[in-house]
Amino acid sequence: MTETKQQESPKTHRAVRWHPPSYDVRVEDVPFPKVEHPDDAIVKIALAGLCGSDLHIYRGHDVITKVHTSGHEFVGEVVALGSNFLAVGGEQAASNGRPVLYSTLKVGDRVVSPFTVSCGECRPCRQGFSSRCARSLLFGSPALEGGQAQYVRVPYAGGTLFRLDDIKPDLATESRLTTLADSSLLLLADILPTGYFAALQLLQHPKLLPLLGGNPYPHTTLALSNPVGEAATSKDLLSIALIGLGPVGICAVVSLLDLLWKNGISYYRIIAIDPHEQRRNLIKAIYNKILDANPTLNQKSTFEAVDIETAKQRGFSADNAGFDGVIEAVGNTSAISLAFDLVRPFGVITSVGVHQDQPLPMPGRALYGKNVSLDFGRCPVRSVFPLVLDLLVRRQDVFGEVGTETSLVDRIVGFDEAKVYYDLFDKGKCGKVLFDPWK
Amino acid sequence: MTETKQQESPKTHRAVRWHPPSYDVRVEDVPFPKVEHPDDAIVKIALAGLCGSDLHIYRGHDVITKVHTSGHEFVGEVVALGSNFLAVGGEQAASNGRPVLYSTLKVGDRVVSPFTVSCGECRPCRQGFSSRCARSLLFGSPALEGGQAQYVRVPYAGGTLFRLDDIKPDLATESRLTTLADSSLLLLADILPTGYFAALQLLQHPKLLPLLGGNPYPHTTLALSNPVGEAATSKDLLSIALIGLGPVGICAVVSLLDLLWKNGISYYRIIAIDPHEQRRNLIKAIYNKILDANPTLNQKSTFEAVDIETAKQRGFSADNAGFDGVIEAVGNTSAISLAFDLVRPFGVITSVGVHQDQPLPMPGRALYGKNVSLDFGRCPVRSVFPLVLDLLVRRQDVFGEVGTETSLVDRIVGFDEAKVYYDLFDKGKCGKVLFDPWK
Repeated sequence: MTETKQQESPKTHRAVRWHPPSYDVRVEDVPFPKVEHPDDAIVKIALAGLCGSDLHIYRGHDVITKVHTSGHEFVGEVVALGSNFLAVGGEQAASNGRPVLYSTLKVGDRVVSPFTVSCGECRPCRQGFSSRCARSLLFGSPALEGGQAQYVRVPYAGGTLFRLDDIKPDLATESRLTTLADSSLLLLADILPTGYFAALQLLQHPKLLPLLGGNPYPHTTLALSNPVGEAATSKDLLSIALIGLGPVGICAVVSLLDLLWKNGISYYRIIAIDPHEQRRNLIKAIYNKILDANPTLNQKSTFEAVDIETAKQRGFSADNAGFDGVIEAVGNTSAISLAFDLVRPFGVITSVGVHQDQPLPMPGRALYGKNVSLDFGRCPVRSVFPLVLDLLVRRQDVFGEVGTETSLVDRIVGFDEAKVYYDLFDKGKCGKVLFDPWK
Repeated sequence: MTETKQQESPKTHRAVRWHPPSYDVRVEDVPFPKVEHPDDAIVKIALAGLCGSDLHIYRGHDVITKVHTSGHEFVGEVVALGSNFLAVGGEQAASNGRPVLYSTLKVGDRVVSPFTVSCGECRPCRQGFSSRCARSLLFGSPALEGGQAQYVRVPYAGGTLFRLDDIKPDLATESRLTTLADSSLLLLADILPTGYFAALQLLQHPKLLPLLGGNPYPHTTLALSNPVGEAATSKDLLSIALIGLGPVGICAVVSLLDLLWKNGISYYRIIAIDPHEQRRNLIKAIYNKILDANPTLNQKSTFEAVDIETAKQRGFSADNAGFDGVIEAVGNTSAISLAFDLVRPFGVITSVGVHQDQPLPMPGRALYGKNVSLDFGRCPVRSVFPLVLDLLVRRQDVFGEVGTETSLVDRIVGFDEAKVYYDLFDKGKCGKVLFDPWK
């Protein structure tokens, strides 16, 4: 019943497979993925990433027993499509108002995938909350084979995939886009959108808008703007703290600066917090690199990378009230506690860390007493893709090179080295690693 | 040094005084309040409210030992001003860019006060966060004598008070405003702004905007709007749950409906939740009264007042995903737990309840897993005053009469009955009570 067009169809392919209970990944030959549903696509992997959150499963933190292919970051090329795609003769797709890729995606197209499947058609997807798609599946989990392989099956591919041809000229010229290396595009699968989401979610919270737009809270288009508001907001310094300088934290800093500068906010105080000196040095180097490329920026503002103790001093020195916004990019109790200590009354905490089972440490009375707002959760990667691609194209000074001092990607290795690099990455002995399945 | 103009200056006045440790209020003659600081005003009270949060102190929940005058809701008339007011010869005020009332407030002006002092000049005040003013003081607490008295001293009066003449014609015609009874205006001190704040804070959260404006998340003026967003938001039903139908909860419902209708959102599902049948009947009567006065409204929408078990069934029946937004107007662990159970992934919880010392019951993993947003805290009454006054003027069908079936105010009594009505109110045997100090 399922009509497919399959360009390449070897019997088996190579994949990095996780085995229970922990610390056991093996490169194995497994059956070639097949179109199982008319909405499926099969993608040939060009590069796959090893991500910090792969370590949750690797270390056996989750109660998982099923052997499965690891990895949720990949870029590649479409090699087969299910029968619901017009390119293989599906006619229903176009006429039913389904996501446009069901009408336009073709074998040979270059694609990036978010780290979760999103159908593009359910209520959460329509509203832009693709990470909580009603049909969501996480690549590299017991529910769905991952991308650290030569091929991968993508369910609901018309809603999930992003085709790299689908860039409008106002986002990036075609020439700039085609120069993007796969190692840059791979950052779109998870860490760059997650960092961008953290920054955007923070800055667009209504409690921060007075510092961006000049109108006092609760200025809103929903109600009258403050009609007898007598006090115009002065040019107060916007202060932001960011906790955790792993890859996501770095992406959040770069996104934050980009959003501020694009909106003409040049009067800010940012501190980036991490206990590891090496990480602090990396973000300083990245900040300086961006400034060098944009010498007119940062006329009045300060950026510091500090340890936890220094952060607490900074938070309570200047105006004794804390930071307007805090990004928490770690995901544990001490990080969210620090965020709460640092945030000012009527401030905002955006948490993109993956938290575990402990309750939040803050008492309800303290949350009331500080009028604090908190945003939690997983980035809707597919929904923010276009915005993040725009950033990626413009910030090739940061995201463009592998293995340089300021690169987020440490190196690209073949599957033969997968086991070794899982171990090194787990022990913090290397930075972000990408796998070339054909190397 | 402090020059004052004092219209009336008796030696003593009558006040409702709280005595430790608990359940002990007495009507006593106390010294007449004096201008203690050049920014002070003395207000002659026309009406003072008894509020649910007065019961925290009344019951001895807080560790307070100081005898003090109770009450944080009052309307009245200015009878004396400190030397920083132009009306008494102060010249500094106008030239220094201070809040305009220092230049314009006169003895004899009719004023309402928020339940806390706000200077109007500190960073939080300038940004619209008046409830977290750096100089904030709560009326009717050990730090500041309250309004259940014949007179009250108002610190930072130029920033704190709202003069009832300061209404622009586009908000309300003068004739409509002058018909507002003091018993209506008193609602502006706390409960109506707090309910309005809950509704506005919920609706203006970016995660609810797709349901109001039609653009998918994260549509924002900060970034490009979704440039390759292919799926326009369909007209999904907006669903909101409200927990707790005390006076603040009722005000939140009325505010919510007003904000929705003003913005053309007529496609909603609202449930209001309270275990007490009497309260559910009251909100139903209010809803029907509003509909009767506006027969074109509510073409497609539903409003229900239900108990907790029914609410849980409603939350998981329709789309099995919960409510887009939840207002929590109770302030305890079970209420915030229920809010979390009811909210959908990528939903928003606005909590205006005053919470105690317990930590929040939700594990971090669940907050991440639901992508939930939470807003806590105290209404910035002074900052939202103009918006709420506009609502009050238009919704006299709900807020205009004392002692009717749908009125928020049960009765107006004299101080001789204060002790009795504290007791009845504490035991839930009467609705909201106002005191007329001159009766």
